[in-house]
Amino acid sequence: MGGMSIPKTMRALVKPTAAPGMEMREVPVPVLGATDVLIAVETASVCGTDLHIFHWDAWAEARIKPPYIPGHEFCGTVAAVGELVQGIAVGDFVSAEMHVACGHCLQCRSGQAHVCQFVKILGVDADGAFADYVKIPASNVWKLSKEIPRDFGSLFDPFGNAVHTVLSGAVAGQTVAVTGCGPIGLFAIAVAKACGASTIFAIEPNAQRRELAKTMGADVLIDSAGDVEVLVKSATGGNGVDVLIEMSGHPAAIAQGFRILRMGGRASLLGIPSKPVLMDLADGVIFKGATVHGINGRKMYETWLQAEALLREGKIDLAAVISHRLPLEQFDEAMALLEAGVANKILLTVKRS
Amino acid sequence: MGGMSIPKTMRALVKPTAAPGMEMREVPVPVLGATDVLIAVETASVCGTDLHIFHWDAWAEARIKPPYIPGHEFCGTVAAVGELVQGIAVGDFVSAEMHVACGHCLQCRSGQAHVCQFVKILGVDADGAFADYVKIPASNVWKLSKEIPRDFGSLFDPFGNAVHTVLSGAVAGQTVAVTGCGPIGLFAIAVAKACGASTIFAIEPNAQRRELAKTMGADVLIDSAGDVEVLVKSATGGNGVDVLIEMSGHPAAIAQGFRILRMGGRASLLGIPSKPVLMDLADGVIFKGATVHGINGRKMYETWLQAEALLREGKIDLAAVISHRLPLEQFDEAMALLEAGVANKILLTVKRS
Amino acid sequence: MGGMSIPKTMRALVKPTAAPGMEMREVPVPVLGATDVLIAVETASVCGTDLHIFHWDAWAEARIKPPYIPGHEFCGTVAAVGELVQGIAVGDFVSAEMHVACGHCLQCRSGQAHVCQFVKILGVDADGAFADYVKIPASNVWKLSKEIPRDFGSLFDPFGNAVHTVLSGAVAGQTVAVTGCGPIGLFAIAVAKACGASTIFAIEPNAQRRELAKTMGADVLIDSAGDVEVLVKSATGGNGVDVLIEMSGHPAAIAQGFRILRMGGRASLLGIPSKPVLMDLADGVIFKGATVHGINGRKMYETWLQAEALLREGKIDLAAVISHRLPLEQFDEAMALLEAGVANKILLTVKRS
Amino acid sequence: MGGMSIPKTMRALVKPTAAPGMEMREVPVPVLGATDVLIAVETASVCGTDLHIFHWDAWAEARIKPPYIPGHEFCGTVAAVGELVQGIAVGDFVSAEMHVACGHCLQCRSGQAHVCQFVKILGVDADGAFADYVKIPASNVWKLSKEIPRDFGSLFDPFGNAVHTVLSGAVAGQTVAVTGCGPIGLFAIAVAKACGASTIFAIEPNAQRRELAKTMGADVLIDSAGDVEVLVKSATGGNGVDVLIEMSGHPAAIAQGFRILRMGGRASLLGIPSKPVLMDLADGVIFKGATVHGINGRKMYETWLQAEALLREGKIDLAAVISHRLPLEQFDEAMALLEAGVANKILLTVKRS
Repeated sequence: MGGMSIPKTMRALVKPTAAPGMEMREVPVPVLGATDVLIAVETASVCGTDLHIFHWDAWAEARIKPPYIPGHEFCGTVAAVGELVQGIAVGDFVSAEMHVACGHCLQCRSGQAHVCQFVKILGVDADGAFADYVKIPASNVWKLSKEIPRDFGSLFDPFGNAVHTVLSGAVAGQTVAVTGCGPIGLFAIAVAKACGASTIFAIEPNAQRRELAKTMGADVLIDSAGDVEVLVKSATGGNGVDVLIEMSGHPAAIAQGFRILRMGGRASLLGIPSKPVLMDLADGVIFKGATVHGINGRKMYETWLQAEALLREGKIDLAAVISHRLPLEQFDEAMALLEAGVANKILLTVKRS
Repeated sequence: MGGMSIPKTMRALVKPTAAPGMEMREVPVPVLGATDVLIAVETASVCGTDLHIFHWDAWAEARIKPPYIPGHEFCGTVAAVGELVQGIAVGDFVSAEMHVACGHCLQCRSGQAHVCQFVKILGVDADGAFADYVKIPASNVWKLSKEIPRDFGSLFDPFGNAVHTVLSGAVAGQTVAVTGCGPIGLFAIAVAKACGASTIFAIEPNAQRRELAKTMGADVLIDSAGDVEVLVKSATGGNGVDVLIEMSGHPAAIAQGFRILRMGGRASLLGIPSKPVLMDLADGVIFKGATVHGINGRKMYETWLQAEALLREGKIDLAAVISHRLPLEQFDEAMALLEAGVANKILLTVKRS
Repeated sequence: MGGMSIPKTMRALVKPTAAPGMEMREVPVPVLGATDVLIAVETASVCGTDLHIFHWDAWAEARIKPPYIPGHEFCGTVAAVGELVQGIAVGDFVSAEMHVACGHCLQCRSGQAHVCQFVKILGVDADGAFADYVKIPASNVWKLSKEIPRDFGSLFDPFGNAVHTVLSGAVAGQTVAVTGCGPIGLFAIAVAKACGASTIFAIEPNAQRRELAKTMGADVLIDSAGDVEVLVKSATGGNGVDVLIEMSGHPAAIAQGFRILRMGGRASLLGIPSKPVLMDLADGVIFKGATVHGINGRKMYETWLQAEALLREGKIDLAAVISHRLPLEQFDEAMALLEAGVANKILLTVKRS
Repeated sequence: MGGMSIPKTMRALVKPTAAPGMEMREVPVPVLGATDVLIAVETASVCGTDLHIFHWDAWAEARIKPPYIPGHEFCGTVAAVGELVQGIAVGDFVSAEMHVACGHCLQCRSGQAHVCQFVKILGVDADGAFADYVKIPASNVWKLSKEIPRDFGSLFDPFGNAVHTVLSGAVAGQTVAVTGCGPIGLFAIAVAKACGASTIFAIEPNAQRRELAKTMGADVLIDSAGDVEVLVKSATGGNGVDVLIEMSGHPAAIAQGFRILRMGGRASLLGIPSKPVLMDLADGVIFKGATVHGINGRKMYETWLQAEALLREGKIDLAAVISHRLPLEQFDEAMALLEAGVANKILLTVKRS
């Protein structure tokens, strides 16, 4: 293993027990295997998933095994590489795909590693990036182009979600509705705009987020509480939209989304409903001849290539979605801001002593 | 207008009023427009839709405008053609696509006429084929190859549903589950078999239909009441099936279907639920990265070309699904047989005096 | 037939005999059939095909049957409609798809009318639009949105070629090489740009056209006479381009194009070679695992919908490609300008007396 | 490293020098790396490529670096596994994908490892399977189902070529022409048949191979020297075939193939022309709106999954294509039989002392 000088211990934000809260601790720096890469974290951003883990809700209870280090959106500099690692060098500025696929299942063997049956998510199922250092299998590390603003490095995970969702079908010359304008919905608007969508409808209850949607490229802003169906139908010659990008996971938004989707349209669903949803399958999907894509993670690594290409040329600017920058130690404040619904994307910065 | 000698009136099975029942009546033979074709019906088969219309349920109440002639699955001989009709001649043995698309809407202009916004279905929204003669727009008439058994002519509508559903994604070398083994489900099994499916699971509560499923090519027969998920998972190395073909419309079968669908699999839904369905979108579709196709009618006319090609070479035999042949006048008996669940496909034969 | 006052005769640019040249003549206004539309031409643009017809080369000799009226790119105002025409009214501002498909062949029946076996091209095989009026089947007429600059109306045919070619595969986040920057190549650059292409290479021997390519959105301009392969490979990390858009029809450009296409890339070919081309199929296509699309015309009418959507929002500006505007009577000058290679797109304007 | 008792040396068929011929030699058994698998070869089959290497033609001169061990089609039993290997055990009966992809290039990162820019082919670029033992990276090893006849194990490479070619587009209900009925062409016929092709045309100059084509499922046998175009057109209602599967690499067959391809058809090319081919791109591809797929190797590992699924159910029988079985030592005879054109697939069996 080559590399810069690595300390024995590091600071990490730890989920210590099966209970609400997290805390900063001094823990051992991870030990690298032959095909691993150690990365000095520079920025880690906070995802809604982290909030679930922080608050310890039912989903967290079922999935998370404390103590461990959360954090799955990040960028940083390679500090060391395992002895069999090729093509990645100390000093490279990188992000990483945190879904570690098994490599052996049917899905991994057929180009669908993003739905690996035995996936392990770093930051969820194993130690993640809310720390000075994070250990990642070399195959999952993604070198970032110098042309991409350094700030956007930690956003490849959610931006990749948006790219995967929008580009799971045709978008050029299509009318697109995005339901739910959290960070991934906002990114999706920017992707649709950059890829030739004709009219983009942003459907969202929060007025501040609707404004952000406009900044990201939405053409028509609609309050979810309004008469969405009438507004969208009248703006599309009665057809409804060609493409539905569902980012909210809310049952009402999903139902509304399928009502405004045109006959023969495409719906790509990324937002996760917290419980089963009553679906009008007959009119919303079957008679409509709709195509529905469930979207999970990012395609490995087609989505990363696309995300990189779209950001490299400067056509998409993610800056407006970053609402706060805080040191990792102020995670409590970050969680509170998200909880209050006043933040969009929060970047946590790591300063090694 | 050229043609054979056409009488002024004909016998027809009429839905006379907004109430249960149908009756044979003497009615005028339809008057042809310039682009219409008049067909002397030889055989008309009975669809579940006809049973709804016969019994006058809520769906029928909302959709059907009596008096009119039902019947949308048929074959017969061209008796006359309108003056602008080309390529169809008196004496041709034909069936027809009964979904008459508007030709002007977005869908019709973009290769999706099967989900035309303004479709009119002959036999549902206008006079159909339970009669001596039926009038069809020339563009919807389908000439039947001599190589295809004459008996199968009236089955192109439901067989086309099956072809459309199964071939809406890859099937060669795929494991396929068909949930619901009514006539269209049985046809779907035959199509999947002929198109290279590796293992076909027929999932159906009715034992007689499961036996028919075997005749049509199913490899594994499963009682819906059994432990479907365990059986399918164990027969697929734990993966679940590559393809779900949902033909039942039953909420429980749909839920079961999505549970046995593998990560990254394809579900094509044709069965119509009678009301909204509680769907586990998170685990069944989104995390699974599934692709869901709502299937309506038959693609115009890709599906007809495929159906014709599959039947012409004799690779698919539909005969086992035909359980009864009755004269049109015995429609009451036909409806009773269907109602009792003891019939599969019933052919009504028309004998002109 | 309703309509505005239509004269009995009109001025038309006629190809009178099987020899070079064209001439203005007074000819009868076309007589409408029941499903036809008569359009008062406002602008007709000149295509390279018209130049072949003007000069009477070998292709023209084999295909064209004088006397007839050429011209297949146009826009104008509906002057009259046949009695069975629906959805098109006198006064509508329209263009038209000039490939009149038969409606009956395998291709027409399966969503591929753009490669109809029995297509008749108005302006090539029958009377076209270099005249005061042109007669078009109603199904081929395309109503133009008011949002689209009136000048662009006659350009839907070549712009549609570009849209069809570029969108015959994925383009978002892809590197794209366009070989040949005549009007359609220039349009293709604009389409690729608007639809999210990452880097667009314009490869063209003519310096003025390379400058136009830049105006239309090309990122890298390359003289075909230079070391194209080295330049493209070095600008793509050694990979070559994801997508080749071949617009020149020149054997050398085609060969060059396949050399710069990356392994697994997509080539869409619209430019027509005048004779058979020596292809390195082994290295250029087979070992490369390339996908090659031959592109003909415009998909009916998916391409028109896409073209309309892309122009309607003002994202693509075609103005720079229009180099000259001349009255129809100055066709000789138009042909001379094209011949000299100093023109790009020439609009011929029609002024009815 | 676990395993059965492995000798220090083994017998191998070696290409000793840059000259015609091969010879049996005693050589060291390969030394395994941590992620490698050692396989005791049971059967290795002979490919046309091996004949090029044997005879030392221009292609071999440019590509092959003697001394080395050829042979890239094989099956055998795992004899030892490297320390990091998971999911493969000593005693497993396996074949392997001999295209060893780099894992790092654009293609490897985007699901196109079969066109890896830096691929190394075992048996061509490095030691292969004409030996007692062969060393393979674990990721390339393919475990064979017990349901598959043991004899077919070595045929996954060429059978996979056929599967990849035929299934690179739709085949259900399609008319298919296979040009060139060597082993891969014959396999392609069987795959097309099993996957629902309607009519399969086998076009081949050699009468014995045409008979084999019939055995494998071809419906119409055509001598390449006959009037292929007239015969195919008349058997397809004048349309030409939906799908062309080009397996010969012969310029005349390729030209003929594109002439019999219908407008809008699909051509998948696997046969390798030995030099550039004069292509009528205008009429054969562009005006035709054809889609052409260059096919290289097998998709990793979608093709292997499909091949396995098709063979496992016993729907495809490859036995008729195996013309000879010889001990590895009789390689000279095998090469002579292939050279004489009297063999189809020859299996070389390995008997360890």
